[in-house]
This record gives sequence, structure tokens and C-alpha cells, in this order.
Amino acid sequence: MVKVGIIGATGYAGNELVRLLMGHKDVEIMWYGSRNYIDKKYAEVYQNMFEIVEDTCLDDNMEELASKVDVIFTATPQGFLAGVLTEEILSRVKIIDLSADFRIKDVRTYEKWYKIEHRSPQFIEEAVYGLCELNRDKIKGARLIANPGCYTTCSILTAYPLVKEGLIDPDTLIIDAKSGTSGAGRGAKLPNLFCEVNENMKAYGVTNHRHTPEIEEQLGYAAGKEIVVNFTPHLVPMNRGILATEYATLNKKADGTLPTYEEVKAVYDKYYKNEKFVRVLEKDICPETKWVEGSNYVDVNFKIDERTGRIVMMGALDNLVKGAAGQAVQNMNLLFGFDEAEGLNLVPMFP
Amino acid sequence: MVKVGIIGATGYAGNELVRLLMGHKDVEIMWYGSRNYIDKKYAEVYQNMFEIVEDTCLDDNMEELASKVDVIFTATPQGFLAGVLTEEILSRVKIIDLSADFRIKDVRTYEKWYKIEHRSPQFIEEAVYGLCELNRDKIKGARLIANPGCYTTCSILTAYPLVKEGLIDPDTLIIDAKSGTSGAGRGAKLPNLFCEVNENMKAYGVTNHRHTPEIEEQLGYAAGKEIVVNFTPHLVPMNRGILATEYATLNKKADGTLPTYEEVKAVYDKYYKNEKFVRVLEKDICPETKWVEGSNYVDVNFKIDERTGRIVMMGALDNLVKGAAGQAVQNMNLLFGFDEAEGLNLVPMFP
Amino acid sequence: MVKVGIIGATGYAGNELVRLLMGHKDVEIMWYGSRNYIDKKYAEVYQNMFEIVEDTCLDDNMEELASKVDVIFTATPQGFLAGVLTEEILSRVKIIDLSADFRIKDVRTYEKWYKIEHRSPQFIEEAVYGLCELNRDKIKGARLIANPGCYTTCSILTAYPLVKEGLIDPDTLIIDAKSGTSGAGRGAKLPNLFCEVNENMKAYGVTNHRHTPEIEEQLGYAAGKEIVVNFTPHLVPMNRGILATEYATLNKKADGTLPTYEEVKAVYDKYYKNEKFVRVLEKDICPETKWVEGSNYVDVNFKIDERTGRIVMMGALDNLVKGAAGQAVQNMNLLFGFDEAEGLNLVPMFP
Amino acid sequence: MVKVGIIGATGYAGNELVRLLMGHKDVEIMWYGSRNYIDKKYAEVYQNMFEIVEDTCLDDNMEELASKVDVIFTATPQGFLAGVLTEEILSRVKIIDLSADFRIKDVRTYEKWYKIEHRSPQFIEEAVYGLCELNRDKIKGARLIANPGCYTTCSILTAYPLVKEGLIDPDTLIIDAKSGTSGAGRGAKLPNLFCEVNENMKAYGVTNHRHTPEIEEQLGYAAGKEIVVNFTPHLVPMNRGILATEYATLNKKADGTLPTYEEVKAVYDKYYKNEKFVRVLEKDICPETKWVEGSNYVDVNFKIDERTGRIVMMGALDNLVKGAAGQAVQNMNLLFGFDEAEGLNLVPMFP
Repeated sequence: MVKVGIIGATGYAGNELVRLLMGHKDVEIMWYGSRNYIDKKYAEVYQNMFEIVEDTCLDDNMEELASKVDVIFTATPQGFLAGVLTEEILSRVKIIDLSADFRIKDVRTYEKWYKIEHRSPQFIEEAVYGLCELNRDKIKGARLIANPGCYTTCSILTAYPLVKEGLIDPDTLIIDAKSGTSGAGRGAKLPNLFCEVNENMKAYGVTNHRHTPEIEEQLGYAAGKEIVVNFTPHLVPMNRGILATEYATLNKKADGTLPTYEEVKAVYDKYYKNEKFVRVLEKDICPETKWVEGSNYVDVNFKIDERTGRIVMMGALDNLVKGAAGQAVQNMNLLFGFDEAEGLNLVPMFP
Repeated sequence: MVKVGIIGATGYAGNELVRLLMGHKDVEIMWYGSRNYIDKKYAEVYQNMFEIVEDTCLDDNMEELASKVDVIFTATPQGFLAGVLTEEILSRVKIIDLSADFRIKDVRTYEKWYKIEHRSPQFIEEAVYGLCELNRDKIKGARLIANPGCYTTCSILTAYPLVKEGLIDPDTLIIDAKSGTSGAGRGAKLPNLFCEVNENMKAYGVTNHRHTPEIEEQLGYAAGKEIVVNFTPHLVPMNRGILATEYATLNKKADGTLPTYEEVKAVYDKYYKNEKFVRVLEKDICPETKWVEGSNYVDVNFKIDERTGRIVMMGALDNLVKGAAGQAVQNMNLLFGFDEAEGLNLVPMFP
Repeated sequence: MVKVGIIGATGYAGNELVRLLMGHKDVEIMWYGSRNYIDKKYAEVYQNMFEIVEDTCLDDNMEELASKVDVIFTATPQGFLAGVLTEEILSRVKIIDLSADFRIKDVRTYEKWYKIEHRSPQFIEEAVYGLCELNRDKIKGARLIANPGCYTTCSILTAYPLVKEGLIDPDTLIIDAKSGTSGAGRGAKLPNLFCEVNENMKAYGVTNHRHTPEIEEQLGYAAGKEIVVNFTPHLVPMNRGILATEYATLNKKADGTLPTYEEVKAVYDKYYKNEKFVRVLEKDICPETKWVEGSNYVDVNFKIDERTGRIVMMGALDNLVKGAAGQAVQNMNLLFGFDEAEGLNLVPMFP
Repeated sequence: MVKVGIIGATGYAGNELVRLLMGHKDVEIMWYGSRNYIDKKYAEVYQNMFEIVEDTCLDDNMEELASKVDVIFTATPQGFLAGVLTEEILSRVKIIDLSADFRIKDVRTYEKWYKIEHRSPQFIEEAVYGLCELNRDKIKGARLIANPGCYTTCSILTAYPLVKEGLIDPDTLIIDAKSGTSGAGRGAKLPNLFCEVNENMKAYGVTNHRHTPEIEEQLGYAAGKEIVVNFTPHLVPMNRGILATEYATLNKKADGTLPTYEEVKAVYDKYYKNEKFVRVLEKDICPETKWVEGSNYVDVNFKIDERTGRIVMMGALDNLVKGAAGQAVQNMNLLFGFDEAEGLNLVPMFP
């Protein structure tokens, strides 16, 4: 049994990690770290775990934890891991970081968008961006995994094949993303109160949301050049789910015509046909967040607009699963040589 | 592998059955029966099943089905099973009926409340009421299981120990139950439209809801006499979940005092301590439907009101799992000698 | 124009008061008191008021306010008004208090249930309980109005005629009430976060909610004796609306039979036929919270259960209107001799 | 008193018309037309109107109606009005049509997008597109008003000043719109059931939604040339509200730089400063649908993205008010010389 520690176990992503790991046959959770709930029973913080988890919350001592477990998940605020990480720790334990600390290679970009100083830039280089479908092989040998953001996972996977194969002009890419409220975390903040969110909808972080540079970096690798995109997140009155609607200008073929449905579909299939967790839907079926809820799937599809010469791409995932804890488990499976889907054979729950 | 057929596979309960059976290691679904969607791919009716279920919907020919599978789940409208059941069928296949056709022993009571003629009363006697925690042994040897209603399961389990042990006067029992909207089914009816249900709440079926006689019959067995109760269901703007709040007058002890918290708790523990799927919560913690969502748990608790001499009992479950498909699977596990929890080790999903 | 001051203008009830008073032709709001937002533009706290309210939030100095306005609404936490009220103030200004400070005549009862010391018990006697349909005449001449609680208004009006006329045994009264989340206020508390409330339902304050003694006192007056009731509030995933489902044993008539529908209906009509804001629905129509949303109506109805000898009464209102700000305006109208419905001719918004 | 008739009074927009007209001091509703509910009391179809509207539903006989009222609102399915309109009718009564029948000047475009034959193209020319802020003067003298679509009103008003003044390249315009579910109407259709919509989000009508040509025509007038845009609607789990997020490339100034915030703001102010119902929010405040709920306001704002050279424009309105019934009343006010805001002085309801 692989021994697991979680720092930040009482956030929504932490709780989802616990849910998923409870169904994983090869692991055992040894440490429920939560600075705010030390000595409190985990099941008192999350009553869904009553009679399932008997453990008590512990602190976030990475040093001690590194000596007790094989892998640490850090589902912590930005800057935490960068502030405590040492070579000593990394030499003893694998780390899967659900924060953004090691997602962005250019430390200046990180510091500009996150407005905090990065306290261990020396580990950025070796960190592997844990978007499993893109970096599977690199992940397998890594010590430090930067688990991607929720919006990012959805935004990237939805457009990746077309950027990679040059079907669209990446500089025309506009990503309009909508998220359920669990992405905002469990902090007691006025804007996240039920009455503020329910029956309401808004954009936020317009032109400056922190997931923007992460999307640009990864899609830039696919494009083979630096790109800038518009990324606009929206808050939607539902618990889980991200829907990304993405727009880009299709590059014309040599004969001056647009690629056909079949040609675009073939490109998606090239990349995702063998990917268990990416489902390219059938023609004209639009992804819906409810169809992936509770599961590790990303549903994607697209529609060509002959009139404007653009393509509309759509992707849907559960922000707490494929957008956070599920992908973290998928990364763990790769790291430890388990079946990549172990613990993730979750059928979406409907309704 | 036990071979399973489902009639009514495209209702919400049917879809939930499919979800649960996909995670059951000893069964295989051979037949997705759905009169309305014959020849349509199941995954086109429920896109959450895309790339998970490849089968096409079939009709509801019980005769043919009985020759192909070991157990049939009928998640069908009232009267369907009673209209087609024969000794021939029952001699070849186990049946777990999610409708009310065989739940009530007195056929006149059934016909009065359901306002339809019962077309195979000869099978009522042998049918076993499939509330696993109460009838475990009888279920194991049955051919025909009457799977309990969603409200009923919640209402009965919440009060059962106190009725059985005579702590409350069952004739004072008032059950105020609240349900998410999936209990109303997938029929396209105006009152179930999003805009009619959302931001709204109402009672319905006041004094005449069909689950009333089912509750009265089962709690009457526990009381050792016929009882009548008030049962009022309410529609709540959420997908899943039933919460039952139940009120009854506590019988005084010989010394004229009310039983204490500890005494009542001990009675609940007597019946539920070893029941995996019934969780008696800790003192003063009120059950919440979200804490059991997606799982087969029923959470129960109670509070004594010294001022009025009454006890307030509360129970919460997921109407599609313990209130329908989950209990059906639990019944199947008992019928076939599987671990009772096989396929049901579902951690509640939060949020 | 009557000059109005509001203390606690930035709570949900305060904001609703502003909404209603904006549509009142005889008043002018002079003071938007809000301790937490002093010097901030009111419309920045509530963007719905952008270009409607230009004022800036002020403090809660009652002394100063009393010299500037004709009436003060205090939509403040328990204990605030009792802590600052003086004869000096009361001699200069009318006060409509939306807190519970002056609702309960027995100060020991208040202190026991609210667990705070009452700091101006000398004003309790003269305060008039502002349930307009019951106390209309007394309200007109009062200086200090104790505006009823949201649950209380709904619970009392639903049962009042039957208690008053002796049709039910008030000691058998059980009130199962369900409320939208705005009743919990705008405080940034974890249990009120969207993800905690949405798709969830729970009881709370079981056997000890503070509205209990208020209900008991008022219905006790109607019964002509002290009574105790069970009152259980529940939190429902919607913004607005309270639904009270109430159960009581019907007193039999001299001939040993239960009263008929028509007899009970006549009693409701006796009290409410001329009440604009109480609508007794037609036979078999259950009240729904959505049908009164945004308006000052209370919809009530009932159903007799011949089997159990009980009656099920139901009432629905908008907790922020008839349950708080609307009733406060109705009280103001009575105090100042305006048409009782001025500013309250609000058609419920559906959907 | 102006006499009003409504055809299609039992749809959501029809019900909202009734709500608004009840608060209008100069009109009287004489006819509640509803083909599906003839002879049924209107208040039985919409219980919110109990004791407010005593009338019974009538048929949709336009001829008869034209002789009884001064203005007819048709809140009817596409094709209805075009199928029954005659010169005779138009000569006797003003018509405000909430359907799309007379919104599009090019009948071929209408027939292509709506896939129905237009049965009275002879009236298209004289019909005035009733977007009050754009066509105020023309509306005043019209006989036939084509009341704009909900998405259209929001989409056009959000971008109009920048298109009109040439600040953006209209051919780069991408409109990503999100709507509450009341926009889908009150028809009993499976995709609009609570459990299908709740906790879910999806795009629909991608590249072919019928509001596209209406947006293109109107913004084309502003641009002074034909334009094509991408318009993608989404279904959101809320009752009311549309949020449009719009993207376009900013035209550079002569000096090669982008316009500044102040310059863009000045353009919005030029068009909307004196418009009561369009609120240009303060810098960096994003429109939220809840802030306009129940009111006739459109809230708009924008953000310049220096990195991509694009501007992100946002607009929010209540689809049943400014997006349908409110705008219809605003048009009626213009037609009959009333104060343009009569009956529309509605403060948004929050929460």
C-alpha cells in the first residue's frame, strides 16, 4: 500500500481527494493535514465522512510528513509549498501540488500574475506539469508534479489538438469559461454566500485571471511559439462543473476552404481516441457539465461556423475531479505505476 | 457473473441502477429495457454513459428477458409488473420491483390508494418487502422483492427502533418529509419544469400520498398493531435527497419521566450499530441530505423536547440510492449471497 | 413626506426596506445606517441600487437620527436597540424594530431563549407586537413597534383563526417550517456558503429556536392560555420564502364528528376575508413560496385528515417582505395614517 | 385608460406583462388570451395572481380583440402574428409583437433562420424594431412594433456605442451569452425539467441560434455595413437573467495606441448617460444578473485587454423584463405618450 499524506485536507479539493482515495485499492491515507482544524476529527469537518474516516486532523509539517508517507498532496493556498519545500523533502517523498506554485516555468510571470514572491524557484525547472494526457511520460519519472488548474485543464484540453496541429490561429483564441462555485473554495467570504451566488451570474477576473498565463504557456508549447489569449471566467450558481466555450479562427486549407467537420474530428480523435478520460462527443452534441459530474471525464466537442470562419470549441469537466483531485490521483497512478484509471472508474452521476 | 435485466432503464432510478451496477464486480447488465427508446443507444438517452454503455434500448418483454438473465429490476410505473407477472416468469428469474405493486399486503388498501386494479394479487403474499435492515433474512430466500419507496425507506428507518421498542406512541407520529425533484421522475410535466420548481417549495399529496399506507403497514408491524400517521411530502429545489422530520409523543417511563438522550440513543444503537448503511449521528448533529448524496447511507438522529414531551426524529437519504437503486442493489446482493455492500461502497459526494 | 432613517440598512432586510420605500409615495429615506460600511456609498454595497440611491452609509447614532427623522427602522442584531433606547429618543421618533428585542413580554423568557441580558426592560410593556392583521388598532397609536419574526409571522397567521375559535387543540400544534437562506443574513459564515446550502436541506435549532416563544406567546393570547408547541425550522436552497406546514388535532364537534371543510374555511374567511395581504387559497390548492415572492402576501390553506383527526395547515410568505421589511412598512403605514397597502402593492414575481 | 389585450398571456413573458401592467397607472387589461386555457381563470394558471386578476382566459381572436382594445401585445410563438395580421386590424389597434415575426427586414433571412414561411411580408417594412434606446422616435409613430429578443436586447446594447462610433471592428465581435431558463418558455419539455437544468450548464444553438441575424442586422446598421458575428447562447440554472460577454478587437487610434478606459467610457456615456434603463457601471465593476432582477435595467461595462488588443464588454438584464415584457411596456409608453418609465420604476430585487 502506498502511504499518502494530504496537506490542506479540509478544503473542497482536499475532501474530494479523500473521497477518491477511499475508493483506490492501493493506497492508504496516513495524514489529514489541516492547519485550521488541528485535533478535530476529520468527519466533524466533513460529515459525509462519518463512520468512513476515523482520523483526526494534523498540522502541515512537511518535514515530518515526508518521513511517514510515500506521496504528499498539497491542496494549499498559493505560496505554501514554495515556502516550505526543500531538497531534503523532495528526496524522500513524491509531491503532487494542487496549487499553482510550480505550474509556470517563468518565475517572473508567476510573480507578476500571482503578486507573491516565489520562495523556491530552484525547483521550478524540475517540476512536471501534470496534465496527464499531454505529459504522461514525463510525469512517470517526476518527483514534483504541478497539478494543473481547473479552468486550465478544461481550457487546454478543449483546444489542444487544433493548436498542436495548426488548424486554428492561436492568437485569435478566446476562452469564455463558466464555473460552479466550489472552485472558489470553502472560505467564509461574502461573495460566496448562497444568496449572493444563487440566481446570479457574473464574469470576474476579466483580463487578469491567474489561470491565463498557465493556459498561454501550455498552448504556446503546442503552438511552438508564445501566444496571448483572452480568458474570462464566470461564476455560475451550481456546485461543480466547468464549461469552456472557446472561439478561434480556423486556418484555411491550401485550396482556400475551411477544414470540414470530418477533418477536424479526425484531429481530435488522433489525440483523444485512446484517452479514457477525454470523450469527444458525437456530432452536434454539446458538452454539459452534468454529464461528467463526479467523474474524471472531460467531454469535448466543436462546431464550425462557415459564416465567420471560426470554430467554436466546447469542453466540460468536474472542477473538483478532473480539474483537481481526480487529476491528482491520475498523476499519482502514473508516478507509482498503477493502472492510470485506478480509483477513477467513476460513472458520472445524473441527475 | 450474474446476468441482470432492467425494465425501465431510462427513468432516473433506472439510470442510477446502471451507474451502481457498473461498479459492481459480480454482475453484467444484459438488457436495457425502455419502451420509449427502443433501438436508441442508451448513451444517447443518458449522455453521462457515453463510452461507458454501448448497448441499445430494448423492449419490456418479460417473458423473453426471463430466459436470458438471472435477475430483473423493474423500475416501471405502478401496475406494470402486476400486469405481466406469471408463475412461469417467477420460476425462472428473481425479480426486484421498484414500483409499489407488491409492497402492500392488503390488496384493497393498494387499490384504494393507487386507484388501479391489482392484476396479480396471487403473488402479493410471497413478495418480500425489501427494506434490508428489517427483513434481511426473508429477502435472502425470496423470488420477488418489493423494493420500498424512497419516502418510505427514510420515514420508516428514522422511527423504527422507537416504535419497535415502544418508546413512542405510534398514533402520534407525524412525518413531514421533503424531497428533491428527481423523485418526480423524468416525465415532461409542467410542474416539474425548472422554473416551476426552482426558488420554490410546496407540500403536495397532503393527507393522501400513496406512501402513507406503506409506512403505516411497516411501522404497524413494528408496533404490533394497526396505526395511522400523518405523512406530508414536500417538493424542494434540489435534484436528490429526502429529509424526513418526524414528531411523536414519547411514552413516559414507569417513574413518570421522559426517557433520556442516552436511553433513546441506546435503542437506536441496538438496531443500527451494526448496520453499515444506517449512521446514527452524534448528539445534536442534524442530518443533512448533502452528506449522503450519491451514497447508500441513511443518516438519522433525534432530539428530545422536554417542554412538549415529544421527540423530533430526523432522517436523510439519497432518494435515488438508498431510496431506490441502491437498496435494489443491496437486495440483489442478499438474494445472490454477495457481500451486502458490494457495489455500494460509495463515499457521499460533497459539495 | 415622512422622513425615514434605517439602522442596519446593509443587511438583507435593510436592503429590502430600501427597495420597498423607494416605491412608497409618502416617504423619503434620510439615513442609511450601517456600522460596517460607514462612508461607503450604499450603491457600492448593493449594486442593485446603482443610480437609484446616491447616499453614503452613516453610523448608527440613534440620538442624532432621532432629531432628523420621523421614524426609525432598526434592522439590527438582537440587543442593539435595547442597548441604546431611551425615553428621550422615543419621545421624538417612532421606532419599528425588526429585531426581537421587544417582541416578548416576559423578559425572563426573552433572556432565556436569546441568552442575552435585556438592557431596557422598561419599554417592553408599551411596545406593540406589530403583526398588523392581529393588532391593527394598537399599532396605530404606538411609539415602539416590535416587528414580528419571519417564521413567526408565517406560523401564527397560518394557525391563528383555528386557535382563536377553538377548532384545534393548541397543545397538539406542531410547526414544521422551511426557509430560504436570506433569513440567515448576509454575514460571511461557512454554513451559509453557496456550496454548503445548495443541493442540501437540514433542520436546525431543533426544539430550541428563538422564534418558538414568540409563536407560543401570540398563539397563547389567541388560545386564552399558555401553550407550548413544537417548532422546527429547516434551511432550503432558495433565496426567499418560508413555508410552514402545521399539524394539530381538530376538536370534535358536539356530535362527535370533525368539523367539515366548509366549517373550517368559514373560520379562516371570518378573519382573513377582508385582509388584503392574507390569501386563503381555494380548496386543495397548496401554498407555494414562489407565488408570493417579492410581495407582502401570505398564502394559507388547510386539509383535514379524517383518518387521523388532524388538520394540516400550510402558509407561505416571502421572509424579506411580509416576514420583515414589508410588514415593517405596513406597520409604518398604520402609524402614520397612510393607506395600509401604500408601497406594498407588489404583484408576486413568477418565475 | 388605455385598453390592453394580451395574446399569449399564459406564457412566462405574458405573465410578466400582466405583473408590470398591474402597476401601470394608465392602462387596463381587457383580454387575457390563451389558446390552451380558454375559460380557465387566469389566476388558476398563475396562482401568483390570485385575488389580483379575476379574469378568465379568452381565445386569440385578433379581429374581435382589435375592436375592443387600444393595443395588443402578442406574446406568441413564431409565425402566429404573421399568420393573422391584416390591414383591417392594424388600422384599428396598435400591436406590440414579442415574437420575431417582424424583427428582421429581409424576409429571406427570416425564413432561412426560422425555417417557416412568412405569411404577411407586406407589413415587415412598416414594423419598427422596438429597441427603445435606439429607435425612440420611430417607435412613437408606429402601428406595429417588433419587440426585440431577450438575447438581442442584451447583446446589442452592450456593444452598440462602440460599433456605432467605430471603436471596435464589428467583424471580430464574438458574443458569448448565458441565460436563465425562463427564456425557454413554459412548455413541458424534457430538457427544461428541473433535474435536467439544475446543477448543469451547456451551450446550445451553436452557430445557428435565431437571434444571430437580428443582432447582425441591428449592429450592421450601427456599423454602416453588413456584419457577421459569432453568437453562442448557454443555458444556466437560474430562473431569470441574461449575461452577455462580448469580445472584439479595438481599432487603434491614429497614433497606433489603443483607446484608453476614459475614452471608451466617454463613448458609452455619450449614448447612455441620459438613458434611465441603461446603467454603465463604475470602473472594474462587472455586471451581475441579480442586480437587475425584476427590473427594466441593463447593466453594462467593459474592460480593455492591452495584451490582446481586445475589449471585453459585458451586459446583464432580466430576460423577462428588459428582455421582453418590460421593453414591451416601454414601447407602449412611447406609443401612447406616457412617461417612458411609467410602470417600470422597478427597483431590482436582491437577493
